[in-house]
Amino acid sequence: MAIKIESLQNKIFKRVKGLNLRKNRDKEGVFVAEGLRFISEIPLDWPVEMFLMTEAFAEENGTKLFENRAVTYILSEELFSLLSDTENPQGVLAVCKKQQENKEKTWIKEDSFFLLAEELNDPGNLGTVIRTADASGVDGIFLSKGSVDVYNPKVLRATMGSIFHVPVYQNIVLEETAREMKKRGVLLYAAHLKGESFPYHLPLQKSCAFLIGNEARGLSDEAANLCDGWVKIPMPGQAESLNASIAAGILMYEVVRQRLN
Amino acid sequence: MAIKIESLQNKIFKRVKGLNLRKNRDKEGVFVAEGLRFISEIPLDWPVEMFLMTEAFAEENGTKLFENRAVTYILSEELFSLLSDTENPQGVLAVCKKQQENKEKTWIKEDSFFLLAEELNDPGNLGTVIRTADASGVDGIFLSKGSVDVYNPKVLRATMGSIFHVPVYQNIVLEETAREMKKRGVLLYAAHLKGESFPYHLPLQKSCAFLIGNEARGLSDEAANLCDGWVKIPMPGQAESLNASIAAGILMYEVVRQRLN
Repeated sequence: MAIKIESLQNKIFKRVKGLNLRKNRDKEGVFVAEGLRFISEIPLDWPVEMFLMTEAFAEENGTKLFENRAVTYILSEELFSLLSDTENPQGVLAVCKKQQENKEKTWIKEDSFFLLAEELNDPGNLGTVIRTADASGVDGIFLSKGSVDVYNPKVLRATMGSIFHVPVYQNIVLEETAREMKKRGVLLYAAHLKGESFPYHLPLQKSCAFLIGNEARGLSDEAANLCDGWVKIPMPGQAESLNASIAAGILMYEVVRQRLN
Repeated sequence: MAIKIESLQNKIFKRVKGLNLRKNRDKEGVFVAEGLRFISEIPLDWPVEMFLMTEAFAEENGTKLFENRAVTYILSEELFSLLSDTENPQGVLAVCKKQQENKEKTWIKEDSFFLLAEELNDPGNLGTVIRTADASGVDGIFLSKGSVDVYNPKVLRATMGSIFHVPVYQNIVLEETAREMKKRGVLLYAAHLKGESFPYHLPLQKSCAFLIGNEARGLSDEAANLCDGWVKIPMPGQAESLNASIAAGILMYEVVRQRLN
């Protein structure tokens, strides 16, 4: 039976409300997936701690499918809207466990393909980058300290569920990750103002990785110096730069193109 | 001399405030460019009607450079913040004339490269698409009725000034534009679920155009049927779709790649 939550003082309610803060998500190792479409992307073997839904959602969709998987709470529209990150809540959310870190499993892929980012700050950009990485078959994403939290609701929404498909490692030290790559023969590239060649002739069929920089500042010198090569993305028009997620998409899709054959 | 605006009832103030509505921008044929970085992208021969700035901005930057170009108004932070579309206004905006339509000049480019969009709705997506189109050398962008206004402040911000570089035609009828293209030998392609080949072998060095669809619904059948060919973007990973601006970026950059040689 679904359990009713009827008060702002309810412990479950207060705990879920607290998950809009990164420090609480970090402490508890969980995050909130909101909306039916996003929830339907949760893989069957992904640990879900609980579902919360409005009375109207429960009436329309039933609670059984949810209860079979995790404890299910029902609350009024008013209470639910206080938990929701959207203006027009669909009336359902899931509290999910975060990804389990298993770098070894990520590293040992053959002809691997990774993405590293230094202080990517815009939630929409990060979410879109994760979605594009998922589409292009990236084996793992490594985010430096100072990047926006991947479990931020705006990031999650922009991933369109790809957070459940690609391993994402946060708070990594770029030097260490680059060293690990070198050890394993993964060549690391970045788009850089001083890059002299285009990405189209890089040997991307072999194990490779791209490092992308902050939206406004680009890559730090320290990060850029970790790379095996710098490339430039051609810009035959008048714009002087590309949006960070577009630049990342162009680079990732060059890997896809080269690996099609 | 710069002119002071001291009241909410000031006619200039009321007129500029009204420009946050599309119908007023349409009626007057002007739009608002906000922020120093964006204003610095305005080409020298672009008609600017007036500048508005806060007292603090005027004190720090002087008014002379602005006054040499157009009538300049100074107002308090409080009044300015009522005109601004951002949370932390930089204290300067320009009222600019919209682009002058000159389709004939756009059409006659050799080896032309166009972008068409059907009901693109997300301001950030449209702005990013315009910025990417500018970088990749697109000769003109054609937006169907039902697309978000290109002079919406959020679109403008995401273009990063590219609105001043690429001709954008709004409220176009896709059938007519496609007919004009056919007449001029421009081949029109779209990414489509039923596309069978990847974009990498299309003859994109010749005159070509891509048609992109709405973020949620994709292309209508009517629009898809106007195309000379459908392509699919490969997705070797698990994501089932790409963000609209990323998909557009991948297609536009395939044109760039093919034309490098």
